[in-house]
This record gives sequence, C-alpha cells and structure tokens, in this order.
Amino acid sequence: MRRTVFDEDHESFRKTIRAFIEAEVVPHYQEWFEAGLVPRDFYLKLGELGTFGIEVPEEYGGAGIESFKFAAVQYEELARAGVSFGGSSTHVALCLPYLLKLATEEQKKRWLPGFVTGETMFAIAMTEPGTGSDLAGMTTTAKRDGDSYVLNGAKTFITGGVHADRVIVCARTSPPLENNRRFGISLFVVDTTSEGYTVGRKLDKIGLRTSDTAELAFTDVRVPAEDLLGEENEGFGYLGQNLPQERLGIAFGAYAQAAAAVRFTQQYVEERKVFGQPVAHFQNTKFELAACQAEVDAAQAVADRALEAHDLGELTAVEAASAKLFCTEVAARVIDRCLQLHGGYGYMNEYPIARLYADNRVNRIYGGTSEVMKLIIAKQMGL
Amino acid sequence: MRRTVFDEDHESFRKTIRAFIEAEVVPHYQEWFEAGLVPRDFYLKLGELGTFGIEVPEEYGGAGIESFKFAAVQYEELARAGVSFGGSSTHVALCLPYLLKLATEEQKKRWLPGFVTGETMFAIAMTEPGTGSDLAGMTTTAKRDGDSYVLNGAKTFITGGVHADRVIVCARTSPPLENNRRFGISLFVVDTTSEGYTVGRKLDKIGLRTSDTAELAFTDVRVPAEDLLGEENEGFGYLGQNLPQERLGIAFGAYAQAAAAVRFTQQYVEERKVFGQPVAHFQNTKFELAACQAEVDAAQAVADRALEAHDLGELTAVEAASAKLFCTEVAARVIDRCLQLHGGYGYMNEYPIARLYADNRVNRIYGGTSEVMKLIIAKQMGL
Amino acid sequence: MRRTVFDEDHESFRKTIRAFIEAEVVPHYQEWFEAGLVPRDFYLKLGELGTFGIEVPEEYGGAGIESFKFAAVQYEELARAGVSFGGSSTHVALCLPYLLKLATEEQKKRWLPGFVTGETMFAIAMTEPGTGSDLAGMTTTAKRDGDSYVLNGAKTFITGGVHADRVIVCARTSPPLENNRRFGISLFVVDTTSEGYTVGRKLDKIGLRTSDTAELAFTDVRVPAEDLLGEENEGFGYLGQNLPQERLGIAFGAYAQAAAAVRFTQQYVEERKVFGQPVAHFQNTKFELAACQAEVDAAQAVADRALEAHDLGELTAVEAASAKLFCTEVAARVIDRCLQLHGGYGYMNEYPIARLYADNRVNRIYGGTSEVMKLIIAKQMGL
Amino acid sequence: MRRTVFDEDHESFRKTIRAFIEAEVVPHYQEWFEAGLVPRDFYLKLGELGTFGIEVPEEYGGAGIESFKFAAVQYEELARAGVSFGGSSTHVALCLPYLLKLATEEQKKRWLPGFVTGETMFAIAMTEPGTGSDLAGMTTTAKRDGDSYVLNGAKTFITGGVHADRVIVCARTSPPLENNRRFGISLFVVDTTSEGYTVGRKLDKIGLRTSDTAELAFTDVRVPAEDLLGEENEGFGYLGQNLPQERLGIAFGAYAQAAAAVRFTQQYVEERKVFGQPVAHFQNTKFELAACQAEVDAAQAVADRALEAHDLGELTAVEAASAKLFCTEVAARVIDRCLQLHGGYGYMNEYPIARLYADNRVNRIYGGTSEVMKLIIAKQMGL
Repeated sequence: MRRTVFDEDHESFRKTIRAFIEAEVVPHYQEWFEAGLVPRDFYLKLGELGTFGIEVPEEYGGAGIESFKFAAVQYEELARAGVSFGGSSTHVALCLPYLLKLATEEQKKRWLPGFVTGETMFAIAMTEPGTGSDLAGMTTTAKRDGDSYVLNGAKTFITGGVHADRVIVCARTSPPLENNRRFGISLFVVDTTSEGYTVGRKLDKIGLRTSDTAELAFTDVRVPAEDLLGEENEGFGYLGQNLPQERLGIAFGAYAQAAAAVRFTQQYVEERKVFGQPVAHFQNTKFELAACQAEVDAAQAVADRALEAHDLGELTAVEAASAKLFCTEVAARVIDRCLQLHGGYGYMNEYPIARLYADNRVNRIYGGTSEVMKLIIAKQMGL
Repeated sequence: MRRTVFDEDHESFRKTIRAFIEAEVVPHYQEWFEAGLVPRDFYLKLGELGTFGIEVPEEYGGAGIESFKFAAVQYEELARAGVSFGGSSTHVALCLPYLLKLATEEQKKRWLPGFVTGETMFAIAMTEPGTGSDLAGMTTTAKRDGDSYVLNGAKTFITGGVHADRVIVCARTSPPLENNRRFGISLFVVDTTSEGYTVGRKLDKIGLRTSDTAELAFTDVRVPAEDLLGEENEGFGYLGQNLPQERLGIAFGAYAQAAAAVRFTQQYVEERKVFGQPVAHFQNTKFELAACQAEVDAAQAVADRALEAHDLGELTAVEAASAKLFCTEVAARVIDRCLQLHGGYGYMNEYPIARLYADNRVNRIYGGTSEVMKLIIAKQMGL
Repeated sequence: MRRTVFDEDHESFRKTIRAFIEAEVVPHYQEWFEAGLVPRDFYLKLGELGTFGIEVPEEYGGAGIESFKFAAVQYEELARAGVSFGGSSTHVALCLPYLLKLATEEQKKRWLPGFVTGETMFAIAMTEPGTGSDLAGMTTTAKRDGDSYVLNGAKTFITGGVHADRVIVCARTSPPLENNRRFGISLFVVDTTSEGYTVGRKLDKIGLRTSDTAELAFTDVRVPAEDLLGEENEGFGYLGQNLPQERLGIAFGAYAQAAAAVRFTQQYVEERKVFGQPVAHFQNTKFELAACQAEVDAAQAVADRALEAHDLGELTAVEAASAKLFCTEVAARVIDRCLQLHGGYGYMNEYPIARLYADNRVNRIYGGTSEVMKLIIAKQMGL
Repeated sequence: MRRTVFDEDHESFRKTIRAFIEAEVVPHYQEWFEAGLVPRDFYLKLGELGTFGIEVPEEYGGAGIESFKFAAVQYEELARAGVSFGGSSTHVALCLPYLLKLATEEQKKRWLPGFVTGETMFAIAMTEPGTGSDLAGMTTTAKRDGDSYVLNGAKTFITGGVHADRVIVCARTSPPLENNRRFGISLFVVDTTSEGYTVGRKLDKIGLRTSDTAELAFTDVRVPAEDLLGEENEGFGYLGQNLPQERLGIAFGAYAQAAAAVRFTQQYVEERKVFGQPVAHFQNTKFELAACQAEVDAAQAVADRALEAHDLGELTAVEAASAKLFCTEVAARVIDRCLQLHGGYGYMNEYPIARLYADNRVNRIYGGTSEVMKLIIAKQMGL
C-alpha cells in the first residue's frame, strides 16, 4: 500500500541516516557488540548529524520540528541495518520530552545545547530494585539542605546509565499524603560527576547488548536546587505524560524490526542452498514468509496510523497502548518464524536475525508490559 | 483512532441501513435461520431501500456512486446486528462488476433495472463438482446452435442459487488451445426459468445458514446468443478481475464480524453473573476482551487502509490478498475467544456469537483460501 | 508408539463396535443429522449390543466390568466413523455413576435392567436458565408433601432431554444454611411421563446436531419419595464426584476426534487434485498434517496415561482437568487446520471434518470450561 | 500423574546429582556464564561423579548400564537448577554411541577409560560452513598416505570444540559414487593436539553461553590409520543411527526446561509484589501458569513414554521426531509465557528464566529442525 505518512523531507532524512549508519555504525558494530557498549564519542557524531536536535527549538541549537516522524524513519533504518545506537535511545525518546515540558528557560539554556551536540547525554532513573512498576513506593530520598538537596538511594534498569552525563532522577522529597500516595515525588537532573554518585553493575541482558543498562547508587549526593525539574513534590504527575509517545516509539520500532526480519530472511533463504536448491524454493519457506509479510503489512498499517495521529496531537493513551500491544506481538511472532528459517545460523549472533530475536523480547515488557496494555484497553472499554 | 474513511454521507446511510435491519430483518431472522433461506420478496425491500443500485449508473435506475464504502458500511451494520441478507450478498458484490464491465448497452438496459429493484436476482456459477479452484479444467459446455448456445453440465457452491433469476454461468465454448488452457471459456447470463435448468440440493453448511447455496444442473439448456457476456472464449480473463474487490469485501466483513463479536461479548459478560459477580469483573475476561479489541483495532486499520486505496483505484491484487489473509485470521482468533467467554450459551445458535462462529469459518476459504493468499504474496515478494 | 492401554478384549470389542457402526449408524446418519435426533428405537439396538451395560453389575443385566476402557474404545470408533450415538452419550457417561453409587438396592432393581436394555433412557438436569455453573444458586424446588415431593422449576442444556424416560433432577429441598450454601440440594430420578413435566424447546446448537438437547419445565410434578436418589439435602456433594471421569471422557473423545480429523484429511488430500496433482503432494499439506499428527500423538499420550490411571483408581481431579484442558485444545487446533486443508468442502456438513469442527467447539466448554480447568490446576499448584 | 518411568535407583541418582550441582555448579555458575565456558577441570569432577561412565561397559571403567533414564534424570536436575554442564553435553549424548558401536576393542581400551574420567573429552564435527544439513556435500578430505590419513578442511558449530581432546571428524576419503552420493565419507577420532589442527572462533550464540561452540580448521593434519572409526567410506550410514536417541534427549531436555520454567516462575510470582500484592494473586497469573502446567504435563507424558520405549529398544525414528517436535514447541510456548510473568527481570540474565529463554531457542533447530521433524513424520504417514 502506498504509504502516506512520510513526505520528501522524511525520505531525504532517510537517505542521510542510511548513509551514516553504513559509514559510521556497520563497520564497528561487531566490536561494539562484543564490548556491550557504544563508544562515548560516537554520540558526538550523532549530535553532529543532527538526530538529537530534531525536536529541540532552534534557539537551543535544534531544528525545532514538532514531529515524531523523523524518529520513526530512524527506527526503520536502524532495524533495516540490524544495528542500534546503543543506550542513547533514551536520550531523545524518553528524556527530551521532560526537558522540553518542565525545564525553565534558564535550565534549557544550560542543558539543551549540550543535549543537541551529544556533549551532555541524558538518562532517566525511575525504577528501583524491588519496587518495579509501583513508582509511588520508591524509597530514594532527596532532603532539602540549604540551597541543595541531598540524594540517597539506588535505581536500576537505567538505559544509558554508564555513559550518561545527566540523569533525571525521581526521588521522594516529602512523605506521601494519607489520601494521595503519589504526592511527594520530585525530579532532579543530577550531574553524574557529583560526589557520592556511583554507577553500579552494567546489567547483563538477553539482548540489547550495545545498550548500556546500569544500576545507580546515590550516597549523600548534593544536587543544587536549580537542578530540580518541575514543581517540587509534583513529579509523579509528570511521569505518565510521555507514555503514549514512548509506546508509539516501541510500536513503531517493533514494526520496523519485524519488517527487517522478513527482509533479512528473504535474503538468507534466497542465497542459502539445501539439498541443491535455495531454501526459498520450498513451499514451506514461501508460506512462512508470506504469512510474516501479511503480519508486517498489518503492523505497518497500525504503526503508520498511530504515527499520523500522534503528529496531529490526537493519539490517545489507549490507542498508543493498543498499537504497542499489537505491534510487539506481531514482531515476536514474525521474528521467531524468520529465525527458524535460518536454521542453525539463526542462533548465531553474527546474523542480524539472532540479535533481533534477543533484542525484541523486551518490547513486550518495557514501556509497560502487554498485561498493562490490556488493563489500559479494558479500562477504556469500561470493563 | 478517529476513522477518516467515512464521511457524512456514509454515516447517514449507516443510520438508514441500521433502522432497516432493525425493522425488517431482526424480527424475522430466527424464522429465516430455521428455514435456511431469506424469503424471496425480502429482496424487493432491499431493492426499494436502494442497496442494490448504489454502484449502478443512474440511467439504469441506480445511484451511480463509484465507491465500495457504502457496501463496507453495510457489512459493519449487518455484523453489528448479527444478521445477514442471505444469498443476495453475491448479487452486488460478485455479479455487478461483471455486468458493469462486460454487458453491452442493450444488455444493461435489459438487466440492470431489474437488478436494482431486486426483481431480477443474479448469482454466478464457476465451481464444478470435482474441479475446485482449477477453473481451466471445467467441463460444462456451451455449444453454438443457430442463434443460441446449448448448455450442459453442473455447478456447485452457488451462493444465491435457489432464488436467482439470472445466473452468470462459465462454460467451455471451445477446447483449450495447446499453449493456452485458459482459452475457450465463455460467460452466459442464463435465465433460470429456462427448460433443462435445474436447482439441485441446497447445500448444508456449517454456517451461513440463511444463505441459499445450491448445486445447479444444465441439460440442453438453450441460451440465446444475446445472453453471452463479453467476448466468446475470453471468459477466463474476466474471472480474476474482480478478485481484489471481492477479497476486500471479505476482509472488511471479517473485520466487522470481529468487532461485532467483541461488542456482543462485552454485553454478555456485563450482564451474566457467575458466583455472584458479572463475568466482566474477572481479570481473565478483561484481558481476553482487551486482547481481542487490540486485534480488532489492527484489523480496522488494515481494512480501512485497503478500502481507501480501493476507492482511489490503487488497491493491488497482493494488497487485497494480504488484507484478506490478515483480517480473516484476526476474525477467527477473536470470535473463538469471544465465544469461549459465553460459556455454554456461546454454543447455542440463538446467541449471535454462535452464528458468527459458524459463519466466520468460511472466510479463510472462499474468495481464495489463506493458502492461495500466501501464494500471491510470496509471488509478489519474488519467492 | 506401541499403545499399552488396550488388550485383546478391548480390540475384540473394537471390532464389534466398528461393525455395528458400519451397519447400523453410517447408512442412516445423514437422515438423523437432518432430523437433529437419533430415533428412539436405535437405543434398543445399543442396549442389545451391550454398550449400556458394560459397567453395570451382572445381577442387573450388565457385564460388571469396572473399567472406562471400553467406553474409550467406543469414543475412538465413533470419531473414526465421523458419527455419534446422539444424546445417549450421557446415559452411560454421566448418569450411570450416580445410579451405581447412590441408588438403593431396590432402586437398582427397578432402574438398571431397563437402563441396560435401553428401554429406560436416563438424562441429568443440573443447569438452570440464568444460573450456569453456580449450582448452589439453583431455584428449582422440591417440597415434601406426604409420600412424594412436588417439583417446580426449569432446567436447560439437558442432553438427551427429548428422548429421556428418567431424568436425574437436582432441586432444592431446603433453604441453604447460613454457613453452607450447598446444603439443601437433593437429587430425584423423575419419570418423564409425570403430569406437569414438559419438554421445552430442542435447543439449536452449532454442532452435535444428532444430540437432542432440551429445556425442561416442571409444574407441580409429583415425584414419589422412593425416587429420591441418595440422602435428602446432600445432593450437592454428589455432583462433583463424577467430574474426573466425565472430563477424562471428554479428553479422550477430543483426542479421538483429532485423530479422526487427521485420518479424514489424509484421505481427502490424497484423492483431491488441484492443478493436476493431489493436494497431498504440496509441502504445505505435508507440514500441516505432520504438525497435526505430532499433536495427536501427544494427545494420545496424555489421554492414554489418564485412562490407565483412572482404571487403577488413581486419576485425581487435577489430572483429569489437565488432560481435558490439553486434549480439547489440541483437538481445536488440529481440526481447524484439517478443515482448512479441505478448502470449500470442509465447510459442507456432508464431509465429516465439517461436523467434527462444529461438534468439537463445545469440548472446551462443557464438563467445565477451559477457564474452570485452569482454576482447578492453579489451585492445586497453591496459587 | 504418578510417574512410572523412574525407580529407586534413578531417584537415588537424582539426589546425588542434585547435591553435586548445588555444591559444584551453582556457586560458580555466574563466573562460568560470564567466561562463556566451563573450566576444563570441572570435567574431571563430572568424571569422578560417574556421569560420563553410566553407559560405558564395566571393563572400561564405566557402570555398564544400558539405559537413557539416568541421563534423563540429569536433564531434569540441570534444568531445575537453571544451569548446564557446558559443552560436555555432547561428550556422552552424541559421541559415546559412536564409540560404543564402532570402536574396535583396541580403540575402546585406548579411549574409553579417559572418556569415563573426563581426562579425554570428546566432540563431534559434522557440519561445515556452507553445507549445513547436506552432509553428503561435505568438502573436508582425508587422504591416505602410508599408515596415516592427511586431513584438510573446516568444520563449524562444534559443541565442546574448545575443550575437546578428541574430535570425531567426518571427512571424505573417496569421491561420491555416481549412484550413491553418500559413499566415501569416513569418521576419524582426531587428537586435538595434532599439528595443523586449529580451534577457530568460539561462536557467539543467543544462548547456551557456557557451552563452548567453535569452528575447527585442519591443515594437513596427520591422523594415524588406527584412529579411523568404523569402516572406511561407510561413515555416512553411521551418522543417522544415533538420531532417535539424540532427539529423545532434546525432547526430554525441553520438557525439563519447561517444567523448570514453571517452577522458577511460580517462586517469582509468589515473592514479587506489585501494587501491594503478590503477582501470584492476579487471575491472569494463575491462568497463565495453569495453562503452562497443563502443557508441561502433556510434555511429560510424551517424554516419559518415549523414554520408556527407548529403554525397551522400541523407539522408532518417527516417534523420536514427533516427541522432539512436540516437546520443543511446548517449551518455546511455556518459557515465553513464564518470562513474560517476570516483567523486566525476565530479561536479565541473572534470572534463570532469561537464560532458559535464550538457551531454549536452539531446541527447535539442532538435532534436526522442526521442519525436518515434520518431513520425517509426513514420510511415515505416506505423504
């Protein structure tokens, strides 16, 4: 189906990003994969390329474009090449919305120029060991002391946590109110060179190996009061506002991964011979790939529709949840079937289908599990 | 997601058709269901309502609207009410395109006014007992004899075959050419009151019970030469041209059935109590219905995109195949899960979910099986 | 795998039952199917054959064999022939255990000889319109009046309800106790010729068409006190005791249906030609049937293991639930795939795969839904 | 269901192996996992424990037990602890059958004592880069030269390839015959310290991280003629003989992994709290785990039945294929659902469910893919 979601600007950006990936990522990717990390200075190249600044207003060095479509193009191109930009995925997708929405003019001036160039990389720290999705139960505290706050506690599952220069940390500044457990959480943009700030273990995950996911610990870290983001004690309310865009991003990325899986697999089965003929010639191969393609077509319809709605400011929370649930389930089914068509090579990480398989498993979990998506949909149905 | 595919005219038509179904179909449906047939004179009411003439040019009594969207609205409303218009579904969806495309001016004048009013109901007869999808292997013959053709043979799976006044019959007028098996097939618009024309058994199907599906037999049936449709011997080429629209129709219908299944089930589980509480209160119910809703959302995205493309004249054969494959599989999954939530009542035909279950099974088969859809997609992929 | 569950006696019984089905059922089955009922006098033939008396002690005219294996053989043979014995399935499978366990010597003498010959057909009436699985909530009452009880109320989903001569009816004889809702239910073996006893609608189901499923109504039906079965007010406790065997029966039947589906389909695809070659020659056909066969093999392993355990008196409630859940899900998957391989013919009730498809849908529902099976398993796991 | 497959000896062995795993594996496993390798001297401990010698005749230092049941117990205990014995899995499961069947008395005396103690670890090298399953197309050659053979070529996917002391290498000793491509392959038990023998890359896989899988290269490696295993040129015929046992092993291992996954997950959901209550309290959790348990029960029935048949010498190739196909598909479904119930922790390799997920993916591939299993079953069905 002729796609209507991208115009010439997007296609031009696609060319740029594709060339960049080909030149700057593919040749080094095996090395990054084994190291479990993208090199820090690669982010400066990304900054130079302009991908960090697309949605940042021009006065802070960005392009000032209010659209998620360029990010969507980037997801497609990364999946197509079978690579990732590592932990920097959260820099733009998760952290920027907070900065744009909550930072004061003064803070924006301090932080956004470095954000755009990649000199100041951001991460966000919500989850704590042992509390999981129940954010109101967090135990990290920030106590006011003069013109700064003193931060104590620990966080986990912090994507980009190894390389981050600034981390948006959620901490309790007041005890919960009797009738409102959510009161009392505040956000701080913590300098990661502060005394008492420690990066703990880099977590060993099934996939997303180039993405640095870490534990963080704070022991009497002094955070200047001017690094408080938004209103004190009102942080909880900020946390959910970006979820629809986050879920759209995961949905779109999952669709793009599924599409890439079909493409990698078609190449493989056309080249690979078994018993004297290409694997592509077997009817089972044709039926499997055709079934996958039909699912990818459907995921594209869903992802494109949600992307268009989001750019028009119309994407609701439940629509984003439905798109995430659907696209991530399609991706799981499609990638599993595509891997199977690779036989033993599908299990080897040097083949992109293997990395997609391992990476993809988290899609049904992060940004809210499939179960949480179902709760959101059921609630909207009035159930 | 705000749907963009329907405008005010469609919504106005929706109101009309909904009121008509409520008044003219629902009160009689149980009776029709038991009889396995819609009464013949109901078609005159449909004619009066105008649903047969939407795409017929105004000079023949129709509305002259070149759009499949009104048909799509009708699919949604029928599914929503849990009923059908019986075997007349092929009158418009399958037969009209042949008449519009192939009939001469003289033929149109003879046939279309009755087509629009429902006085002349059409069916189409392709499949023969024993040949199935291999149309080039058909054995029904039509031999020229003076100014008429003499028709002999048998057909099966003829939807609307009991009530039809005119049947578009495919027959062999010449033997196949050595290098072209497809040569030699012609189409005839046969008067069902002709001598030697017999309606055989009404076939007993799993579902679609109000749809009269019959076997037909022709013994020396004389068909006037002016009832030849299109060029003699070139019939095979005509047969595939309408398939994308036919498959779009099935895809849309399947989506509409899945959506209706969720709606019926939600009503059921909210009313039905088990162990003192509504079935809707169980988490399993919520999760099942939410999962179904997300699939319905996806099917809607796919069906709407295909419908829009079709109205723009852009829907390709492979896109229609992909949409049919996907939407019919979604419908199968969703309706099965929804039936399960009804418990024992889901197995009783008085509940619409039971009828949907039985009706729906043919969606993955007719208009080309899921396997044929996969072959089309695989071919397009170059596999 | 060599099966160890059946010995020579079972195989000899298999031959007898197979010949009987071939001679007495297959020639008439189409007629019965259209009538929606097995003729009443067919039950006398079944009685003569001895299938009703296998587990009945010899002093009442039976064979006195304490084993479910002969019943299992019968399930296999019925499925293999694509037929059923109609509503009489409950006569032995559901009713007999109550009679054997609860009837007094005097009652056994009155009822069992007719039970064995088929002169007295039994059914059981638990479910009421509107209460479903919540048996403790039943509203049918039986009030003591002299030496009889007066029965009032209605029941639904009564398999065999049209032909039954005696129906085991559950009714409330006392109000529930404050701390025990289950107290106060009694069982009566009601003579269906009693005044005030009415057979309501024969219910129209998706499948099981030869099985007469009816609604019953009782208006001041006088039931002699000697027709009370078991202790007064203690009926609820009796109801669950037979469930493991009932579920084993459904599990075994579902396995047998899945095995039969593969067999029918293999025959079909070997005979049916498409594009000049048998459907069996396509790789997709081979893969689909092989996948189905592997599932059938697994279902056989599960069903045989449960059957053996049951004959040893070791089958627990949770094991029966697990076997039912698994085997009925396998059957659903396998029969759906097998039907698909039949193309359009799979939708026609003259093909056994179509009837299997329609019949099979209730397996995941009756005898306790799949959801109830999961609750039983979860409870056993301590969840 | 009471299992009948294991007796007291097996349960006693289970205790031993469980204690060993607890003491010798669990404390070091994280270290081994990070290293991607089991330490070489761990194999000496396994030898001391006796697990290598179970099926080795007593005259060579083994226990001389002809049964696969002890191996099956070991699979269960490894899965239960969430660990593996690394690449040594092929030492017994794949290599020993060749040695027992093909080695001469002299060879057995030379090799088996070291095999039993773990001083001489074995691996087997069949697959070559680029030829995959088509073994007859192998290009590694062994040319006779005096009293030795000169080996040249390369192999890949060699489990245990890093640590192996002896590798059973398949090589071409004669060109294929015109009417028999399979002629001309021979097996050699190559000393890995030979000159010209190189261990290439340790392959980076999705899972099985402690298992050393390597590429091997042979450059003019001289293999003494007395290290030829079996008849020259007849090697191809030997290769398939062990496949049923190999597939039984994979089937049993997959069942054991699925059972372990349910166990790990039950522990997790009972401990883990979300919104103030254990995850185990949600109905969705109960239903998911119960559904998984029913699948595990079925896999156990299948695996036990195949194990019993194998010990009786009755397990056919097609029965092993069916068991492998079924059990590996169950494991894939169960482990995926169990991981999901862990939320984000399920993606972290420190949780055993994450390692099971990554390990398990190869089960549907190695020892013959699911597609190959279907071909075997279809062929047996006569399709």
